[in-house]
Amino acid sequence: MIIIGEKINGGIPSVAQAIADRDEGFIRAQALKQTEFGAHYLDVCAGTSPDLERETLKWLIGVVQDTVDTPLCIDSTDCGMILDILPFVDKPGLINSVSEEGGKCEQLLPKIADSEWKVIALTCDNNGISTDPVVKYNIAVSIMEKAKSLGISEDRMFIDPLVTAISTTGDSFLSFTETMRMIRERYPDVHITSGLSNISFGMPFRKAVNQQFLCLAMAAGMDSAIMDPASADMRAALYATDALLGRDRLCRRYLQAYRKGLIGSKVTASA
Amino acid sequence: MIIIGEKINGGIPSVAQAIADRDEGFIRAQALKQTEFGAHYLDVCAGTSPDLERETLKWLIGVVQDTVDTPLCIDSTDCGMILDILPFVDKPGLINSVSEEGGKCEQLLPKIADSEWKVIALTCDNNGISTDPVVKYNIAVSIMEKAKSLGISEDRMFIDPLVTAISTTGDSFLSFTETMRMIRERYPDVHITSGLSNISFGMPFRKAVNQQFLCLAMAAGMDSAIMDPASADMRAALYATDALLGRDRLCRRYLQAYRKGLIGSKVTASA
Repeated sequence: MIIIGEKINGGIPSVAQAIADRDEGFIRAQALKQTEFGAHYLDVCAGTSPDLERETLKWLIGVVQDTVDTPLCIDSTDCGMILDILPFVDKPGLINSVSEEGGKCEQLLPKIADSEWKVIALTCDNNGISTDPVVKYNIAVSIMEKAKSLGISEDRMFIDPLVTAISTTGDSFLSFTETMRMIRERYPDVHITSGLSNISFGMPFRKAVNQQFLCLAMAAGMDSAIMDPASADMRAALYATDALLGRDRLCRRYLQAYRKGLIGSKVTASA
Repeated sequence: MIIIGEKINGGIPSVAQAIADRDEGFIRAQALKQTEFGAHYLDVCAGTSPDLERETLKWLIGVVQDTVDTPLCIDSTDCGMILDILPFVDKPGLINSVSEEGGKCEQLLPKIADSEWKVIALTCDNNGISTDPVVKYNIAVSIMEKAKSLGISEDRMFIDPLVTAISTTGDSFLSFTETMRMIRERYPDVHITSGLSNISFGMPFRKAVNQQFLCLAMAAGMDSAIMDPASADMRAALYATDALLGRDRLCRRYLQAYRKGLIGSKVTASA
């Protein structure tokens, strides 16, 4: 599983405050903690008003790169902004995100085609987010074909089928897996990722739904997640699922995580 | 999901003590609690030496029937003992268990064929427990064909594919689901159950493995479990999985369980 740490996002009130205060210590702590708990990429999203986004992203990127070597996942709805920011990033990571909305693919993909940057693509277009797996699949195909025509290999692309809240869309998970199944059948080497906590929006005791979503989605072929790697509950679900699915020989990673105190009853509350 | 409550079992030290002391209050409390938390059947197992088993089972059955109306699951390795005990049970429930070992099917199935008793059948024989799905499937077929020849309908049979510990058999879960898939393909109306906590034997932080096993097995077609219904963690996994799999319209059962305090952070430690 490729874990994209979600905690450096101005949409989170404590992060917004740290951004407003230019509190480097807070951002450094988030970068260190997520890296320590196994994040492969660190999502960096300003979450500010557009006029402050460029300056904020540059500051965040500088602080994070000064703290850890973990590759970044540059997160903005503005592809022009992302392209402006890339020169300030030390090494290629992920771009989050393109979609079939507003010509984002045409704007961004040609510019990064010859680089080592990877891309998260959302299955939405100018009509918004569909709940129909076929519509989502067709959007994914359109994006993937554009990428392929530019020489971007399948494994540089991460498709996010945009899971919707189960509280409002009862078949949200089934629609997610059906979309994923169709995409995987056509593009076996593509990555499938998800900002998975959206599944439990509006529900009480969200962690139970998030844990079981992670488990079921991993079994169905999801190989990446945008999540908090420092959540002990999510980590436990992840390690246990890997062991059950036969992806953790002799349960070594599970047992090692337990011995290190990363999962289990001895995990500190802060983790 | 058909829940078979596992807590009235003399193999559990506190229950063994209650049996030795003929402590009715302890047994009544276990019966009430498991029923309150949604058990459809209550497993009753003496777990004593053979010479004490008959007397112990009769006492346990009397106490439980005097406390709740929940159907019983009469649990013994001795089919003759089970047949002797049935007249003392108020209404038909489950018999746990037969297998292809020692002529158990031939001894028990004809005697209950014309009743409403249901049967748990284990996929083992005189050679013990295989880890090969084909061997397990063949045992299940042999038992099911004996049942069918006696007019016992598929839905009166519960097959337990005998999950082994993942700490010693790395592909234990995959073997379990493959066995289940083959059985279901041939007998669509049969129930599949599991004494699921065996999966985590020898592992630390067993609840994480048990939760994810329940979740993955439910998705793969298991429709019953022998478990502790009063475990808040297992209940949360069960309700969340049902909601994700589209089996809980508008998440009503999940939300109701939360409001009743059966899942979530407000669950009391004893639950």
